[in-house]
Amino acid sequence: MTRILPKAITNVIESFQRLPGIGPKTATRLAFYLFHVPQEELDQFAKSVSELKTNTVLCSVCKNIAEVDPCTICSSPGRDPSMICVVEQPTDVLSIERTGKFNGTYHVLHGSIDPLNNIGPEELYIADLLKRVSNVKEIILAMNPNMEGEATAMYITKQIKMRNGQCAITRLAHGLPVGADIEYADEVTLSRALEGRRQQ
Amino acid sequence: MTRILPKAITNVIESFQRLPGIGPKTATRLAFYLFHVPQEELDQFAKSVSELKTNTVLCSVCKNIAEVDPCTICSSPGRDPSMICVVEQPTDVLSIERTGKFNGTYHVLHGSIDPLNNIGPEELYIADLLKRVSNVKEIILAMNPNMEGEATAMYITKQIKMRNGQCAITRLAHGLPVGADIEYADEVTLSRALEGRRQQ
Repeated sequence: MTRILPKAITNVIESFQRLPGIGPKTATRLAFYLFHVPQEELDQFAKSVSELKTNTVLCSVCKNIAEVDPCTICSSPGRDPSMICVVEQPTDVLSIERTGKFNGTYHVLHGSIDPLNNIGPEELYIADLLKRVSNVKEIILAMNPNMEGEATAMYITKQIKMRNGQCAITRLAHGLPVGADIEYADEVTLSRALEGRRQQ
Repeated sequence: MTRILPKAITNVIESFQRLPGIGPKTATRLAFYLFHVPQEELDQFAKSVSELKTNTVLCSVCKNIAEVDPCTICSSPGRDPSMICVVEQPTDVLSIERTGKFNGTYHVLHGSIDPLNNIGPEELYIADLLKRVSNVKEIILAMNPNMEGEATAMYITKQIKMRNGQCAITRLAHGLPVGADIEYADEVTLSRALEGRRQQ
């Protein structure tokens, strides 16, 4: 079957198939779709992919993926460097920026502690975070609310307390997502929402 | 928000977003995933995309996308040129080849007659098909079983009959897909399955 498919097509199919969540059928559909795209756009696509890593740097302060070092957030005079929001991934920075409610700086760990997959604290940018904590007032641990996120938050909390006892360490609130139905909320989320109830 | 995202990333996100079925969230996820891919593989991905169209040709006989002209099927001495299976898309050729049950040649229309989207017979490779029908014994119309496919099949049938009265014109059988449940079959499919019942 692949014998009759030109190599140029199977190459594209194989490239797409390496992406997460894209199986052979979707990859084939995407490859054939590209035949309807002008060559100019294909070249642009190709250029953007091959320049993705060469045209970006890791910010030496917060370890976020950036265009310049230090990144626009770390170098902005409008941002409060005494507040650090620690996140697992660069995409989490985007999500928090989108809220418009945070005016401090970030620190991107690029993962979470996950012993089953051989990811310990040394594989993450935790040491770089600890170097930053001396003059910091608050550190918000915005890890994902799962096992690995909890383990990472616990580890970091312990390490920060050893270095800066004055620094407030906070976690994102757990509770009902806005728009959710109490009827369908899971017990753990509902327990957390009860524990975290606030006076009106 | 996009202000803080490096241009190199937004370029990739925009490229992915142009693909069918890929929204802004998936595009962002894919772009950030590519940071974990070695530069070598990114370059390979880029190369495969930009060479997709330059390294393929349209077979002058069957209009399928091919590496050489005429394509390997049209030029194969093992294939019967007196049988032509007419399909809408190059991917349909793949599906039929995968069955291993067809030993004739193909003709790819690259679409179906769709007046609502301004696609008439002239926009498809129907004239090229009609040039091929003079010495042909059977033409299998393997259009999709929908409105556009039916219209295309009807149009082609009429045109072929005007040119070659001897040529058998057949359609793919309609009926229950293998593994399906009669309980859940729609009425149209079940009617077709009854009409097309075969003696055991």
